[in-house]
Amino acid sequence: MSISVAVTGATGYVGGELLRMLLAHPEVEIGALTAGSSAGSRLGDHHAHLVPLADREVLETTTENLAGHDVVFLALPHGTSAPVAAELGDDVLVIDCGADFRLQSSDDWSRFYGGDHAGTWPYGLPELPGQRERLAGTRRVAGPGCFPTVSTLAIMPALPLVDDSALTIVAPTAPSGAGKKLATTFLGSEVLGQASAYGVGGTHRHTPEIEQNLRAAGAENPVVSFTPVLVPMSRGILAVVSAPAAEGVTAADVRAAYVAAYADEPFVHLLPEGQWPQTQGTLGANTVHVQATLDERAGRVVAIGAMDNLAKGTAGGAIQSMNLALGLPETTGLTTIGVAP
Amino acid sequence: MSISVAVTGATGYVGGELLRMLLAHPEVEIGALTAGSSAGSRLGDHHAHLVPLADREVLETTTENLAGHDVVFLALPHGTSAPVAAELGDDVLVIDCGADFRLQSSDDWSRFYGGDHAGTWPYGLPELPGQRERLAGTRRVAGPGCFPTVSTLAIMPALPLVDDSALTIVAPTAPSGAGKKLATTFLGSEVLGQASAYGVGGTHRHTPEIEQNLRAAGAENPVVSFTPVLVPMSRGILAVVSAPAAEGVTAADVRAAYVAAYADEPFVHLLPEGQWPQTQGTLGANTVHVQATLDERAGRVVAIGAMDNLAKGTAGGAIQSMNLALGLPETTGLTTIGVAP
Amino acid sequence: MSISVAVTGATGYVGGELLRMLLAHPEVEIGALTAGSSAGSRLGDHHAHLVPLADREVLETTTENLAGHDVVFLALPHGTSAPVAAELGDDVLVIDCGADFRLQSSDDWSRFYGGDHAGTWPYGLPELPGQRERLAGTRRVAGPGCFPTVSTLAIMPALPLVDDSALTIVAPTAPSGAGKKLATTFLGSEVLGQASAYGVGGTHRHTPEIEQNLRAAGAENPVVSFTPVLVPMSRGILAVVSAPAAEGVTAADVRAAYVAAYADEPFVHLLPEGQWPQTQGTLGANTVHVQATLDERAGRVVAIGAMDNLAKGTAGGAIQSMNLALGLPETTGLTTIGVAP
Amino acid sequence: MSISVAVTGATGYVGGELLRMLLAHPEVEIGALTAGSSAGSRLGDHHAHLVPLADREVLETTTENLAGHDVVFLALPHGTSAPVAAELGDDVLVIDCGADFRLQSSDDWSRFYGGDHAGTWPYGLPELPGQRERLAGTRRVAGPGCFPTVSTLAIMPALPLVDDSALTIVAPTAPSGAGKKLATTFLGSEVLGQASAYGVGGTHRHTPEIEQNLRAAGAENPVVSFTPVLVPMSRGILAVVSAPAAEGVTAADVRAAYVAAYADEPFVHLLPEGQWPQTQGTLGANTVHVQATLDERAGRVVAIGAMDNLAKGTAGGAIQSMNLALGLPETTGLTTIGVAP
Repeated sequence: MSISVAVTGATGYVGGELLRMLLAHPEVEIGALTAGSSAGSRLGDHHAHLVPLADREVLETTTENLAGHDVVFLALPHGTSAPVAAELGDDVLVIDCGADFRLQSSDDWSRFYGGDHAGTWPYGLPELPGQRERLAGTRRVAGPGCFPTVSTLAIMPALPLVDDSALTIVAPTAPSGAGKKLATTFLGSEVLGQASAYGVGGTHRHTPEIEQNLRAAGAENPVVSFTPVLVPMSRGILAVVSAPAAEGVTAADVRAAYVAAYADEPFVHLLPEGQWPQTQGTLGANTVHVQATLDERAGRVVAIGAMDNLAKGTAGGAIQSMNLALGLPETTGLTTIGVAP
Repeated sequence: MSISVAVTGATGYVGGELLRMLLAHPEVEIGALTAGSSAGSRLGDHHAHLVPLADREVLETTTENLAGHDVVFLALPHGTSAPVAAELGDDVLVIDCGADFRLQSSDDWSRFYGGDHAGTWPYGLPELPGQRERLAGTRRVAGPGCFPTVSTLAIMPALPLVDDSALTIVAPTAPSGAGKKLATTFLGSEVLGQASAYGVGGTHRHTPEIEQNLRAAGAENPVVSFTPVLVPMSRGILAVVSAPAAEGVTAADVRAAYVAAYADEPFVHLLPEGQWPQTQGTLGANTVHVQATLDERAGRVVAIGAMDNLAKGTAGGAIQSMNLALGLPETTGLTTIGVAP
Repeated sequence: MSISVAVTGATGYVGGELLRMLLAHPEVEIGALTAGSSAGSRLGDHHAHLVPLADREVLETTTENLAGHDVVFLALPHGTSAPVAAELGDDVLVIDCGADFRLQSSDDWSRFYGGDHAGTWPYGLPELPGQRERLAGTRRVAGPGCFPTVSTLAIMPALPLVDDSALTIVAPTAPSGAGKKLATTFLGSEVLGQASAYGVGGTHRHTPEIEQNLRAAGAENPVVSFTPVLVPMSRGILAVVSAPAAEGVTAADVRAAYVAAYADEPFVHLLPEGQWPQTQGTLGANTVHVQATLDERAGRVVAIGAMDNLAKGTAGGAIQSMNLALGLPETTGLTTIGVAP
Repeated sequence: MSISVAVTGATGYVGGELLRMLLAHPEVEIGALTAGSSAGSRLGDHHAHLVPLADREVLETTTENLAGHDVVFLALPHGTSAPVAAELGDDVLVIDCGADFRLQSSDDWSRFYGGDHAGTWPYGLPELPGQRERLAGTRRVAGPGCFPTVSTLAIMPALPLVDDSALTIVAPTAPSGAGKKLATTFLGSEVLGQASAYGVGGTHRHTPEIEQNLRAAGAENPVVSFTPVLVPMSRGILAVVSAPAAEGVTAADVRAAYVAAYADEPFVHLLPEGQWPQTQGTLGANTVHVQATLDERAGRVVAIGAMDNLAKGTAGGAIQSMNLALGLPETTGLTTIGVAP
């Protein structure tokens, strides 16, 4: 099989990561690379690491340039995917790496993003219950947010064992999650030597998406207090999730729940007891490393997930969904092996 | 006044930071610098930044070498301060930067540190209620741990407004908190590009100390779930503390509590509404930057404190206590101005 | 004495560092803080670390706002200082932290900066021969560039011992040298985990300034190959300078030259033989750490200087010149003690 | 074909990188993993990123455990490879990632390493003239040092155009080059926020190896002044190499030499004119990115190479040699695509 793939937003970090991973995919042929203001440049001007594509010209993101591909990845600013997608045929697999089609609730969209809600597409987190079936054969996928992916997978097996109405998530993260956005906050001088929280107090846009996932995973009324913290690393998220343990829950119960949940998941790696996830272990790989325990003193389950925000957190997860949508083996072209140290 | 001061453990990071700050103290004369295995070397071999002391010889930590000083700072491994302190006269002000004399509960000591509990000294966190009075004139001070200092000051004003039995603290921190300990975990290659949690599940030794502080601040039965996260920065802790808000609490209540609590505190800087603490702002300074808000969706108060773990977190806080113990103005020789970016 | 000081460009990194250091200067009263597009904001919005000035309003950079001060520091983009300076009286001490008045050669200006050369002011590197005399009483100072300061001081004592026509300088440096300029190159994601050279092949603007300094220090026809390298640290430059040793030069000659040159320099710290400069040792301090040796195999003198680009490299050096111009002791309000680790 | 491969020193950084890359090699089956003091542990305890090998037991490095493999990689401390190699049959391909067999000159060995010289094996830098032929079919390979690889490839094409007796190399590098060695110098606290030179003045052990390579590439009497600089990144070296240009050399000559030299090299990527190498572009890949120019003012050719010290710098280069020795296509299982940002 040879699947022709176009990537919009190809000069950004998500576009670059999609291309890096697609270059390793045995069934894919990389077609049009498009962008906005950097159209007309060489791809190598933006991504020195993508040597085989260095001399490719970056095209404008137009219907003509995207035509004729089997798959189109959208790596565009939030709120701009819908008009591009509308021009692509129903037989084309469109995978949006932005937020536009993730949320089921239009109220949540209005509250956290503002403006009109574009709609809801099948959600690209195959590890959610029943989600692989929903992704099989679909021609539209809403790629999940990075924090929702790692947070959901970190706590999901424990949901039956905790009070899901009092979840806290604090997640140190890399500035690459913000893309190439030019803002003082993301300058090297501001990021180096610094830890700083943002979106504090329930304002981060990934909050309702996390809760939506937890409902999909069986939580009745999940409520999340979510605080991301910017730290000086190129890639990675370490999500520290905790919730009050239900009456009578033991450490063995927690372990058993995780073992059962992830024994057969190809991209979730439950660490041996006592070993805690580290972001280096996941760098560049389509994987989440997970560990959980019971804090008996505090009566809380504490779960931690480590993930590369650009890999499993965005581009890798999108390719995983592509595989499912096209009927390929889910793991085709995706590695679980990180680059460390 | 000229106060003669000796520093043990002078070649470590805490020793170095004590000396850096004492060099800026107008009433202090720096006397003996002592250490263990590095005795006999020049101080400049260990601390290139302490130019005025570069040629000082590092002495052995003996009773003779420590004799004749008004103040002795102990920057020794946990569990080793007691015998050194026992040899120093009751008229000498001894300030222990280690953990030995911090805890009031011998059970907590045994459980978290093991071995025999050396005792309890006046606790060097002047911002606790009534603590300045306890420190005035004392000749023994137990300097607080870094996480307890920043965590306590971040959440203390909110205690009357929250359920203190369900506190969570997640705190990204610098490897300098571990001193010069040679372990793979603290190698640059392991720390760079990485976030990793440790002491997960209530096992970190600072947990009971935080709870002890919260009780001292009025909490009835504080229970803390504490997770430190190692991140790649030289110095700094960002403590993200949250707890369920009590019924009816408003954002204005939270703000008012912090304004009232910290209006007159010289070393706690409450940021204007909407500005969140960043560790860079506190680098090298004896200060904690604090902000808090109410997450109305999640029903939690979220408070954040930023601090330099070596400065206000250890050495600066110890000098602040020294000032109080000796009857000097509390702010003598201490700056609130950080080095950023 | 109370010297009133205004700072333009107060919201940038150089402005912030000037204010941090001026707050520690016992003779200075901080007056107007001005800026361009950020006029009208609070200083605390830009510099969380400058707590005592947090509530100061940032004013527009106008003649009116700058009037009535004894000293005005200009921390403006290159090429924009001249018109502001022209409006300030001859009795006002104006210290330009930009490049406009550094170069003596209009040809060099045209070649490296372009446009018209504004002129030449007394150059604010007091360690150059005879320069203290030129700075005494002046009312105009051109603050030196950061690379020229550290490179000059690293190699100056060796100039009589080397072939000055074949100097190479490679200097790892921090992104803060570029200020808050919003460009992809300076994003945290580009800087973290990366070393990258720029201005390669003799195009960096500091090249002619370094050669000008070396001529002032006695070199006959200095020619410099200069390559800066951006590395992931908040502050600091490590200048590695080398040149062919003259016939018969010994390691002892090199050492003797440095000892003689820097024995009485308050802000240049020659390390003991065998100890090499590290940038951490100079963080936040008005100092350069220097070491040199003879590579006998290669027949080159290798000299290394470590410096904080914002401190001695810009703001500290400017205040040092201010002290000289005003007849204050040169070291007033300036520290040689860095913040490490 | 299925080639069975054993890796000694499997728990170190070089061992880990060998395994990471071998897992992607289609012809290799990973056999015994051995180590010294960590024998008996799980590989996953040391390398969380190598998920498929997590449960493998680490064996002792004994002749028995290494027996029966087609290829044995030695990732051992310098000076310890010879006795292990001596026990392996002549039909086994032994690739030493240490220094023991790199140097041709016993004098150089004694001077830079001390002790007895173990001998000289075919040198694993296929890009040297005639080297592919020497590696074909060999059963012993001395893997090159990381600095020699990147420095040689950066300057090699320019050798006919420069005075090779006055080369300078300054190379910012990552601490992972030192492996997991426990020394204060390599602690995160010392590495973060810091640039520091080491091995200054011609004492670094890679100096004679670089000169040996340049002789192999045609230099008559190469003399190198080499200064490595430790900077805070996980991986990567940026080698800045310069030398006096020969009379009459033009920028076009330089460009032409590089184009000719590297047009057909699979693992050396010459960047387009004006684009300079960045270490991120090579992370995890078996590649060196190269650029060069003529500094007409200074009369020097300046060449820069970027490389991942663990990948092409050690493990990847070793596998490239393995492919040649075994008669496989040189590029088998090796990628030129880096992981960035």
